[in-house]
Amino acid sequence: SINAERLLGRLRDLGQIGRDDDGRLVRLAASDADRAGRDALVAWIRAAGLEVVVDRIGNIFGIWSNDANAEQAPALLGSHIDTVIDAGIYDGCYGVLSGLEVIETLKAAGYAPTRPIAVAAFTNEEGVRYAPDMMGSLVHAGGLSVDEALATIGTDGTVLGAELERIGYAGTEEPGFLRPYAYVELHIEQASVLEREGVSVGAVENLQGISWQRITIEGEANHAGTTPMAMRRDAGHAAACVVTFLRDRALNANSPTVATVGCMSFEPNAINVIPSRAIFTVDLRDPDGERLRTEEAALADYLKELAASEEVTIAVDRLARFEPVTFDRNIVALIEGAARERGLAVKRMTSGAGHDAQMIARIAPAAMIFVPSIGGISHNPREHTPDADLVAGANILLDVVARLAAR
Amino acid sequence: SINAERLLGRLRDLGQIGRDDDGRLVRLAASDADRAGRDALVAWIRAAGLEVVVDRIGNIFGIWSNDANAEQAPALLGSHIDTVIDAGIYDGCYGVLSGLEVIETLKAAGYAPTRPIAVAAFTNEEGVRYAPDMMGSLVHAGGLSVDEALATIGTDGTVLGAELERIGYAGTEEPGFLRPYAYVELHIEQASVLEREGVSVGAVENLQGISWQRITIEGEANHAGTTPMAMRRDAGHAAACVVTFLRDRALNANSPTVATVGCMSFEPNAINVIPSRAIFTVDLRDPDGERLRTEEAALADYLKELAASEEVTIAVDRLARFEPVTFDRNIVALIEGAARERGLAVKRMTSGAGHDAQMIARIAPAAMIFVPSIGGISHNPREHTPDADLVAGANILLDVVARLAAR
Ligand SMILES: NC(=O)NCCC(=O)O
Ligand SMILES: NC(=O)NCCC(=O)O
Repeated sequence: SINAERLLGRLRDLGQIGRDDDGRLVRLAASDADRAGRDALVAWIRAAGLEVVVDRIGNIFGIWSNDANAEQAPALLGSHIDTVIDAGIYDGCYGVLSGLEVIETLKAAGYAPTRPIAVAAFTNEEGVRYAPDMMGSLVHAGGLSVDEALATIGTDGTVLGAELERIGYAGTEEPGFLRPYAYVELHIEQASVLEREGVSVGAVENLQGISWQRITIEGEANHAGTTPMAMRRDAGHAAACVVTFLRDRALNANSPTVATVGCMSFEPNAINVIPSRAIFTVDLRDPDGERLRTEEAALADYLKELAASEEVTIAVDRLARFEPVTFDRNIVALIEGAARERGLAVKRMTSGAGHDAQMIARIAPAAMIFVPSIGGISHNPREHTPDADLVAGANILLDVVARLAAR
Repeated sequence: SINAERLLGRLRDLGQIGRDDDGRLVRLAASDADRAGRDALVAWIRAAGLEVVVDRIGNIFGIWSNDANAEQAPALLGSHIDTVIDAGIYDGCYGVLSGLEVIETLKAAGYAPTRPIAVAAFTNEEGVRYAPDMMGSLVHAGGLSVDEALATIGTDGTVLGAELERIGYAGTEEPGFLRPYAYVELHIEQASVLEREGVSVGAVENLQGISWQRITIEGEANHAGTTPMAMRRDAGHAAACVVTFLRDRALNANSPTVATVGCMSFEPNAINVIPSRAIFTVDLRDPDGERLRTEEAALADYLKELAASEEVTIAVDRLARFEPVTFDRNIVALIEGAARERGLAVKRMTSGAGHDAQMIARIAPAAMIFVPSIGGISHNPREHTPDADLVAGANILLDVVARLAAR
């Protein structure tokens, strides 16, 4: 079994790195806070005696190999350590630190794996500063060229490549250099299914499709006091119509479709000026690929009508688009079996969030292990998973990896 | 008649001061750009041989008096030179520069007025950076204490008093030191009534009531992918509901009520996080004081319902509240008469925008002269008034002031 104290201690320590002046955890990809988190992680990987490799997109790998197994494809564990704005301490970090913990445990136990075991911390999984999300693992899997990814412009106008250079994590290794034999990611559920059903372990079978768009509506600035209601071309009002359209449609859909407008800004953003421009994001998700396309089409139709009725112009930029993914059934079965052997209740389930496993599944058999999130709260500082569940999840990861690396 | 070339030249020159990197005119109250605009104005006032007085709230006065009339209450002309974001060049500046032009013309003609004539540029009329709007004239009229006004915190977190100190326009004179005999403000209409009716001069009889509020909605941040629609407490969605409620109600009201949401921000403002907080402004106006109260009450009721149905908390801050104002009938008649004498079509009308005259009307007989705004466009760089109308308006001001200052 893993060293619970070491794992939980590191999770708490990493959770203190990247706090802003208000005490909020804001460790956005390739920021100074991210650098500090990466430095701590690399120090832990080095202390464990693993080889550290950083690739051109900033993915960090800690590799445990020996002369006998170095030629074999490695078993890969991992997740990410970048966070959203005002984040909890578990999302991503739990999977990376558990991966390292599992390797240290196996190493200390004198275990001699048939193949190398590696842990990865992928760059920019959250996608908050640079879209798309899961960028590092997407590049690793060959779904996006590294040069295109490095040229991404962030919400703050920065360029990812320049920021990685600046924080010292623009590595030299070509992304994708490591072709895994299998990939397993341990993560908090970020929903409340496991908690509600009293189950400690989720064996994740699949993952819903994700559609991200940025919408820009152009109307006409005019005086708030002198412009009659009927003569307005109010970009802010048109944006509000999109927000309520998406919410009403998803709420009444009788399907698991979810729709979110997370970012919103008005221009000129002055109290007595009718907004000339509104820019906002749309996050649409559905486990069914066909239904996701239907929802996207419904939004497109609505935007067309709205442009005509409100006399505004509407431009749409695609920020991310990922189809639903089905994980490897053998690894899912391994996870189930490992949980049962440890006497833990286990449930096959789907993931509402995007994960690096979704990208690595393109190049290797992959699956995920979930542990409960209290109240289903995530992307929120109140994100919480009890210690016992965190330790149980890491032990399942240990058992699964020991089996995969012995093959 | 006034010197058209001098007036139009200064209007254009002042319109180039305070352009940002994108070429937009952004001369917000007490900013560096405002300082530059004030410096230009003060230089023109000095060159005209007037006395310059700056009071504690930063109002600038150019006073023309002589030994014979110095004890009399002055005729006051004025407006403001602060602007909104991405403004036109006429709003406010036209009134201030015409006031100066009128005094220079009378002075050069050897006119000997019974009372001093002064021109004022009031601080922070727009209210974009610091609320309420018409702040300098409100303080001058005793409607807000100077200390309270100086302590106002801006949308950018600055304190007005400190900013006035910084730009060198925190004067020493006590606001209200100058009790006008009468006040006349020349301004662009900012609506399209005069243009549509082919009338060159508006004699403004009254001005609608203004209600400004800032609304803060608190929901709960959670993951955009994992949180079912029915379990959300989405502050952004609740804000969008308020925007559509206000618009639908005002649009269908069969009254001149106008409602505008000009400022909007979401927190944490991340693509895959349900907004935990939305902060936005509401600008409600109506020429009828009773109806304005009814509209405010309807919004308050709606917010109560919304807080319950969306499970959010809602806080309301009042930023400004001004009752409708009726101007002095004698000055309105003087304006009408002056226009007719010059052979210009004139129309009695109401003002949709707030103006410094609305505040000064509390302490002196006041009225306004309007000239046409092409297309009714204002608070927009496309704001435009033809030169002939600008010159005609300034000549009406000249005639009215000459009469008032002779009394
Ligand atoms: N697991 C997780 O929060 N991923 C971020 C990407 C997303 O699903 O929005
Ligand atoms: N005239 C003018 O634009 N005043 C600004 C205050 C307002 O009416 O919003």
